[in-house]
Amino acid sequence: MGKTAPAPTDLPLADLYAPIASDLQRAVAIMDREMQSDLPFVDGLAERVRAYRGKMLRPALLLLTADAVGKVTTTHHTLAAVVEMVHVATLVHDDVLDEADVRRQHKTINTMNGNEIAVMLGDYLISHAFHLCSSLDSQYASRLIGSTTNTVCEGEMMQLHHRGCYDLCEADYFEIIRRKTAVLTAAACTLGAKFADADGKLVVALGGFGTHAGIAFQIMDDILDLVGSEQKVGKTLGRDLDLGKLTLPLIHFLSNVDSSRRAKLLDTLRHDQTTSTGDAPADSRRSVADFLRDTGSLDYARGVARRHVDQALAVLTRLPASPARASLQAMTEFIIDRER
Amino acid sequence: MGKTAPAPTDLPLADLYAPIASDLQRAVAIMDREMQSDLPFVDGLAERVRAYRGKMLRPALLLLTADAVGKVTTTHHTLAAVVEMVHVATLVHDDVLDEADVRRQHKTINTMNGNEIAVMLGDYLISHAFHLCSSLDSQYASRLIGSTTNTVCEGEMMQLHHRGCYDLCEADYFEIIRRKTAVLTAAACTLGAKFADADGKLVVALGGFGTHAGIAFQIMDDILDLVGSEQKVGKTLGRDLDLGKLTLPLIHFLSNVDSSRRAKLLDTLRHDQTTSTGDAPADSRRSVADFLRDTGSLDYARGVARRHVDQALAVLTRLPASPARASLQAMTEFIIDRER
Repeated sequence: MGKTAPAPTDLPLADLYAPIASDLQRAVAIMDREMQSDLPFVDGLAERVRAYRGKMLRPALLLLTADAVGKVTTTHHTLAAVVEMVHVATLVHDDVLDEADVRRQHKTINTMNGNEIAVMLGDYLISHAFHLCSSLDSQYASRLIGSTTNTVCEGEMMQLHHRGCYDLCEADYFEIIRRKTAVLTAAACTLGAKFADADGKLVVALGGFGTHAGIAFQIMDDILDLVGSEQKVGKTLGRDLDLGKLTLPLIHFLSNVDSSRRAKLLDTLRHDQTTSTGDAPADSRRSVADFLRDTGSLDYARGVARRHVDQALAVLTRLPASPARASLQAMTEFIIDRER
Repeated sequence: MGKTAPAPTDLPLADLYAPIASDLQRAVAIMDREMQSDLPFVDGLAERVRAYRGKMLRPALLLLTADAVGKVTTTHHTLAAVVEMVHVATLVHDDVLDEADVRRQHKTINTMNGNEIAVMLGDYLISHAFHLCSSLDSQYASRLIGSTTNTVCEGEMMQLHHRGCYDLCEADYFEIIRRKTAVLTAAACTLGAKFADADGKLVVALGGFGTHAGIAFQIMDDILDLVGSEQKVGKTLGRDLDLGKLTLPLIHFLSNVDSSRRAKLLDTLRHDQTTSTGDAPADSRRSVADFLRDTGSLDYARGVARRHVDQALAVLTRLPASPARASLQAMTEFIIDRER
């Protein structure tokens, strides 16, 4: 185990993960075993990927959902490893797309080893995720993971397609984050419930829990990119501005202010894009944040995230009270409160 | 169907594909259906990918193997689509890795739409390949495709790792091409045989046929990169030199000439690497080719390819005579004779 890999007990949400701590450890062991290669430098790269493991939110969601519904099985351990590997693969390729330098307090793979290796390493992760998933008896999980990653790719392409498009509407923004983020959290909860033998309606409802939690999470992630502390968040911030990605506070601002303030913000954004040297432009990020604070656009976005959190929490009331359900509730609340 | 998509009857090897022409058409239809998206610009990109379809060697190998062994089934049609989608995904990501401008006589996706879209489109193809594969009843194919793509990624990473390494030995070269190329042709033949109910020994033997054919194909592909006609081959050539990739003729040359000629070639190679502007350096490519011709290094590499072709042909003698077997034999011979 590399020095960079957080043990489940060191995770920021370790208390909440208590009901499934040993299950999470098994998932990590499965992931490590799956990523082993007979080629030493491939093994070395796989080791570096461990630094990309962060909060392990998706495997935790899967395992807690299973525990809250019924019993955690070895199939869940495998699937928890699969959803985390899919997630890490998207991070590795995202960092190539975003030209990001820092992730989880460490230099990104693209910065350390070049874009070519980062592209291949992301492919290697995705391939191993599918390979691991196909070790299960049923095709159900493979089919769901496949359709999930189809949709994640569409979300990413949709986001690329709209880069620098300053009239992106809210509906398109929600479609992007639903596809690129919420389908995977939804899949995690669906798989957790399904393989704990939940009835069909409950599986669908818990998928909905994952969707709402994922949407709220992404809205808050986008807010942190604008106003978070790079040290706390542990990754390069301000990249959305830099890359011409509109997020909810900006969309709200641009469609609710008079034309002169709109023009002023657009000037700042376009200036960033043309002068960006690849470093987060801290000054203009701060001035954009001030714009958004003054007009209540940050509060607006937080309010939307809050509503999705509430919808997610409403689903959880359908489960019997248990430590696992309490953890899911606390994790959902944490989405709004998090600083990283 | 886009203008850029070759109909099976227009393929360069159409005559050889006659026994499975309608099966190949079904595979293409499955691929087209699988790649459909409700997002118009994703559909547009998927359309552009059709231009990447070339000789359809891998699906043809799969279907001809099935036909030569027994009966082609609907499972084979799906699997033929899967292996082609995996192959095209590797081409799209390869072109990002190699910064290539031209593929199948068309501009590459990375040149037309940028590296970011090319990375995501490759992911989209891989994801759909797995998704399609998991629609089958058995996990056997998903598991084999997953382990195949694991190995392909290792081969690609191994190649990247050895870029600019001018003392690459033959053993490492063969390990790279076995992993990045031959495992997929082997998987195609294995799946063709397995789902035509061939007995276990024959499935393994035909996998071996695919391995030898794949190795021979890659050696000849590498030779074409050095001495082929860009117009005939239909892709940017000379990229191997440009990117510091040693291939068999160069490895043979470097380990068989006196130190002064060795130094002279290494100078040319290093000069290419430092002065390359991204265009194929036609002049120095020609001078490298002259070096290799004079010392018999090209003939040596062709000889090695020939031996793998012969080993592949030997496997085919275990099959009863049939039009499909005759096509497999002719395709195998074509590996050596091809100019594109």
